[in-house]
Amino acid sequence: MAATAPRVLRAVIEYDGTAFAGSQVQPNARTVQGELETALNRLIGERTRVQLAGRTDAGVHATGQVVAFRHPRELPRGADLPAFQRRLNAALPRDLAVRSLRLAPAGFDPRRDARRRVYRYRILMNGMRRPLEAHRTLEIDDPLDVDAMKAAAARMVGEHDFASLGSHVHGRTVRELAEVRITRRGDLVEVRVTANAFLRRMVRSMVALLLEVGRGRLAPERVDEILSGRARALHGRAAPARGLTLERVVY
Amino acid sequence: MAATAPRVLRAVIEYDGTAFAGSQVQPNARTVQGELETALNRLIGERTRVQLAGRTDAGVHATGQVVAFRHPRELPRGADLPAFQRRLNAALPRDLAVRSLRLAPAGFDPRRDARRRVYRYRILMNGMRRPLEAHRTLEIDDPLDVDAMKAAAARMVGEHDFASLGSHVHGRTVRELAEVRITRRGDLVEVRVTANAFLRRMVRSMVALLLEVGRGRLAPERVDEILSGRARALHGRAAPARGLTLERVVY
Repeated sequence: MAATAPRVLRAVIEYDGTAFAGSQVQPNARTVQGELETALNRLIGERTRVQLAGRTDAGVHATGQVVAFRHPRELPRGADLPAFQRRLNAALPRDLAVRSLRLAPAGFDPRRDARRRVYRYRILMNGMRRPLEAHRTLEIDDPLDVDAMKAAAARMVGEHDFASLGSHVHGRTVRELAEVRITRRGDLVEVRVTANAFLRRMVRSMVALLLEVGRGRLAPERVDEILSGRARALHGRAAPARGLTLERVVY
Repeated sequence: MAATAPRVLRAVIEYDGTAFAGSQVQPNARTVQGELETALNRLIGERTRVQLAGRTDAGVHATGQVVAFRHPRELPRGADLPAFQRRLNAALPRDLAVRSLRLAPAGFDPRRDARRRVYRYRILMNGMRRPLEAHRTLEIDDPLDVDAMKAAAARMVGEHDFASLGSHVHGRTVRELAEVRITRRGDLVEVRVTANAFLRRMVRSMVALLLEVGRGRLAPERVDEILSGRARALHGRAAPARGLTLERVVY
């Protein structure tokens, strides 16, 4: 019973991004990292630093963001983790919660060790509205040509320089998109994007581009020119944060 | 193209009940009926009265509430209804929307003509939390014995006097419960209740009773005594409105 374990904890967290200024800590702003660190500091009794797998902008949600933090004292294996998770959830605000918690190997880095990130963007078209889902859906009046969107999405898959669809403060802007899957159920269109890593605002810029295609304002073939930087049809426009959710991080 | 149709319209509506004082119009309170009538008055240009299939209390949601209203002018068949639905949705607040709209036979009464009403109550147990669903879920710390809840629910099905589990300003308190279905996925327990009609607060009182059973504080067999009025274990307690949604009205 006195067996001890490594002290790096890995948590899968969910948040409603509506009232957050983003995931990363910022001065004078309410952030996911800030609220997590405040709750952990209170529970653990000393300053705790949280690392996040993916940076999400203001208003973007998560059902499967992954975070890691060190617990300064030794935790008994197993049974006490659920109790710690409950105490942590009780200390967190209503729009942020830990869905699962487990021990991670020492040195676990949720950002660098991530192999794939999966985002989902929800669009309700044709002027339809779903009030109980409004906080996590973009509602638009237009119909969308989903087949044209799929054709455009296929041109995004693979390795490209995504500089025209996102930004990165330092380093290369080449990323490899593993999959862009577009599904439709009634008036709900979902865009699910998987890659090893994304540039800033990249998913929302991709969705803005796909919306232009779906509305018939841009031919799917134009995607190639935009990706190659020969056309910048979007002028940096991004789809609203509300529709976007970080769904999963795969290790 | 000039063919005209009956002027009673039937709408399926969805609302997030959080910011409503209930469905039925009340003086000095924000209600579903009040917001619908305000929007319709503005669109139609004269006073419109809305009838609702089911009364829902403050904080209770709906994905399939049914309402009816008369349109004073003749509407062309078919094509104009989607356009009218869009204009209506544009005039409604964000937490209330029309999901479908069609012509009803003259004399259609959404309350009296309803054959079945289906409510769903969502409970997240074991201290789990889902921030993106929190507005429509009751979150509890305890585990629930779902089998015991199912045994208790089975005793509620059929014709009973539900006076101990609800109120009615006039008339009989006998109702016939067609089905109480309890399902579990992970930590989410859902109670789906179907009847021709319900007393006020009846579903939430039933859920409060089922929660007592699930927590092991009340044996399933005690349900019989409570229904027969020989025991009033609940003292009128009802489960919080947040977890309850009027899902469907069947005609």
